Amino acid sequence: MPDRTEIDALIDLMAKLPGLGPRSARRAVLHLIRKRALLLQPLADAMQQVASSARECLNCGNVGTAEICPICADARRANGQICVVEDVSDLWAMERSGVFKGRYHVLGGTLSALDNVGPEELRIPQLVSRIDGEAISEVILALNATVDGQTTAHYIADQLETRVELTSLAQGVPIGGELDYLDDGTITAALNARKRV
Amino acid sequence: MPDRTEIDALIDLMAKLPGLGPRSARRAVLHLIRKRALLLQPLADAMQQVASSARECLNCGNVGTAEICPICADARRANGQICVVEDVSDLWAMERSGVFKGRYHVLGGTLSALDNVGPEELRIPQLVSRIDGEAISEVILALNATVDGQTTAHYIADQLETRVELTSLAQGVPIGGELDYLDDGTITAALNARKRV
Repeated sequence: MPDRTEIDALIDLMAKLPGLGPRSARRAVLHLIRKRALLLQPLADAMQQVASSARECLNCGNVGTAEICPICADARRANGQICVVEDVSDLWAMERSGVFKGRYHVLGGTLSALDNVGPEELRIPQLVSRIDGEAISEVILALNATVDGQTTAHYIADQLETRVELTSLAQGVPIGGELDYLDDGTITAALNARKRV
Repeated sequence: MPDRTEIDALIDLMAKLPGLGPRSARRAVLHLIRKRALLLQPLADAMQQVASSARECLNCGNVGTAEICPICADARRANGQICVVEDVSDLWAMERSGVFKGRYHVLGGTLSALDNVGPEELRIPQLVSRIDGEAISEVILALNATVDGQTTAHYIADQLETRVELTSLAQGVPIGGELDYLDDGTITAALNARKRV
């Protein structure tokens, strides 16, 4: 059917999105065609805009539409704290909580000898140079509690040890968590870090 | 953060797609931004093309890019059979099987007094007029085996009864199906429609 190729092409592209397969891509495209004015056209415009304007912040690696992201551009956030995260999605998660008032540094991944990811690829030299440039007093390592994340945290800690105060997120029972459903490692960490009530 | 609104707007729109929520929309948008040249720009272009070219076939209701869809335009498919389906996705499913050589009629839903969906909304008058116009000898009712689908099938059967041969898809055990996992209704239908081996 040569006449359906434009729709087919859209389905093939949609199926490449994380969380969508060929079946859900077909469903999404039919939904889009049905809601052409309300959803398909605005979505096409929004994608075009983001495609031409999205860029990485030169300072921290956050995604935005300017050379320097709003967080790095905000003088009120220059409080001497840098929170190091693996990914932009982690930065967004931290921002949703609204509790952190400093700036971020997005590594864009974790160290990995297998995938040839070294300190250069993770903007670690830039992090080191920001310590002096932005008069940083505390670096908070908010890396994922995975083996790769913790390896990377150790490497960064080695690089910065003598220059700033280094902290990491507390480990323990999540809010609303039930002990019965938690893994041994979390329970061990929570018990070891127990606090007086 | 006024500077992130374009990306936020894209996330909000993506979250309206079936199968995506706010969380997976964020993930998809980050993925798109990372693969800007390979995925985001082609997707924006494909959406723009479909937004401006997609339309319903005036004859059968299929989605395509011309006034008359390729199936209705293909003279080889004028074999006197019309397959009535609820939705374009059902038409696509039938076409993937490749077994049906006739034409389709897409209702675009099922009759529903509650949602104010009558025969007019479902292109049933157009179906009736196609019977003579295209010299149809057989109408195959391929509606979903749900209460709404079967109600609609009964209504269409009433309208066409004396004019054409009316058939519907066989009901029974799906290929690869295990009896233990089938519902009572399917087993009853399969037993009642049993065949000599």
